[in-house]
Amino acid sequence: MQILNGKKTAKEILDTLEIDVAQRAATGKKVPHLAAILVGNDGASETYVASKVKACNQIGFISTLIHFDDKVAEQRLLEKIEELNEDMSVDGILVQLPLPAHISEKKVIESISPLKDVDGFHPENIGRMVLGEEEAFISATPHGIMLLLEHNKIPTKGKHAVIIGRSHIVGRPLSILLSNNSKPGNCTVTVCHSKTINLKEICLQADIIVAALGVPKFLKVDMVKEGAVVIDVGITRVPDAGKKKGYRIVGDVDFDEVAPKCSYITPVPGGVGPMTIAALMKNTFKACVERN
Amino acid sequence: MQILNGKKTAKEILDTLEIDVAQRAATGKKVPHLAAILVGNDGASETYVASKVKACNQIGFISTLIHFDDKVAEQRLLEKIEELNEDMSVDGILVQLPLPAHISEKKVIESISPLKDVDGFHPENIGRMVLGEEEAFISATPHGIMLLLEHNKIPTKGKHAVIIGRSHIVGRPLSILLSNNSKPGNCTVTVCHSKTINLKEICLQADIIVAALGVPKFLKVDMVKEGAVVIDVGITRVPDAGKKKGYRIVGDVDFDEVAPKCSYITPVPGGVGPMTIAALMKNTFKACVERN
Repeated sequence: MQILNGKKTAKEILDTLEIDVAQRAATGKKVPHLAAILVGNDGASETYVASKVKACNQIGFISTLIHFDDKVAEQRLLEKIEELNEDMSVDGILVQLPLPAHISEKKVIESISPLKDVDGFHPENIGRMVLGEEEAFISATPHGIMLLLEHNKIPTKGKHAVIIGRSHIVGRPLSILLSNNSKPGNCTVTVCHSKTINLKEICLQADIIVAALGVPKFLKVDMVKEGAVVIDVGITRVPDAGKKKGYRIVGDVDFDEVAPKCSYITPVPGGVGPMTIAALMKNTFKACVERN
Repeated sequence: MQILNGKKTAKEILDTLEIDVAQRAATGKKVPHLAAILVGNDGASETYVASKVKACNQIGFISTLIHFDDKVAEQRLLEKIEELNEDMSVDGILVQLPLPAHISEKKVIESISPLKDVDGFHPENIGRMVLGEEEAFISATPHGIMLLLEHNKIPTKGKHAVIIGRSHIVGRPLSILLSNNSKPGNCTVTVCHSKTINLKEICLQADIIVAALGVPKFLKVDMVKEGAVVIDVGITRVPDAGKKKGYRIVGDVDFDEVAPKCSYITPVPGGVGPMTIAALMKNTFKACVERN
């Protein structure tokens, strides 16, 4: 069994980006600039945005963090996005989700220019991903998982991948990416979800299992074939008085049980999580290159 | 075994649309108007466009057929589409594919306003379909198959659907629609394709099989579980001197062998084919209602 070390792979990707950015800067080219919008004071959202800004700073991207009160009017938010769309210095725009209930996430996402939509949530970018178009921005978690497979040379062609979860931001896009005619890709893909009846039976056929349903320790050892590759997308915060932060992050895989049976497995934390940041940075770099 | 009679179901849908259109007309509301563009003189394309125009006429839609020479400049085509986008009298625009090699299909498809893209090929509409949004135009073949399942009350929730083929216009969108949380939908879906290794083994698990790869008589009886629902999307033209047209249409399913084993099966012709026309008409009606 080998650990698919997302932290290490993400660092390699970020290191390469850092060199690429320095080269751009040295040759007088524009350096990527990510604008992140945070609304309100949700703890998890603040942590996520902070780690994105930190990654920007580490690798030489410019970053702007715009923090609105949770009472901000939807119109005010939309105006700010319009301003960022038109701002030539900004390459990528992200709005940290979820948003307060009085703001339409759909309206906000669709107001971001598809050319700056580095989170890949705009319908146009989702469509381009389905079509396998190069210009698509692919959302950070599925993109990060594809990068993790690619960098660690995990074979995918002809493999049977079973994805548990059909969310718009992980399961669904990943099912498309893994089955597209690309590299990595070309998997036979089964999408399972809450209405799936014989989940265990299907999982036992999988060469690659992606657990992306958000239920801690859901995937048990009796659902995994010997030698499978297991990708754990879960990041549930479970209260833990023993931890400084008062919680610990638990994945969707019962790691201790499942790991010995796998060929490769991602840990939580340190697996998919860091890869999402790396993917976002790659998207922002791409947006910068394509716009300039 | 029961035949899933697409011809009959399509007629029911068209009859209902005819009544709805007549009601709109009687109350002074706008009647749907479909503009179809045909480039060149490909026999199959001419037949398809003609049957779409015929359906419009039958149910009281207005139709405009614009026929360009196969030498038409891409720019001329794009200008015509722009004109149709701006024409308030036009609700739906379709460009019959394929186009001659000197014209970019991508550019042409993306030039159609997503609000008039009744073929559902624009990336924005594909994205909205993935997101399960009501406003999405879903392309005619997968939409037609979903309507066929719905009108014939074929249970889908929790069923295992195996789709052979991952094309942008059939396999891929259908895999998404069948696994979305909707009705019909909520299937566990496996997408198979040319790189799938154990196709037979996977097909034998299927409650619903969709053959959409374009290989005549590909699906054999030993690949089908007793009682499965089989949907045949194939429409290959095979030369046949005994037919007036010089060819016959052959599906992807070895019908004579497979049919006795099924609970339901679509014939070719008269199965999915007529449903695509019905779906296109429904899309055009929807475009008209939403724009007015």
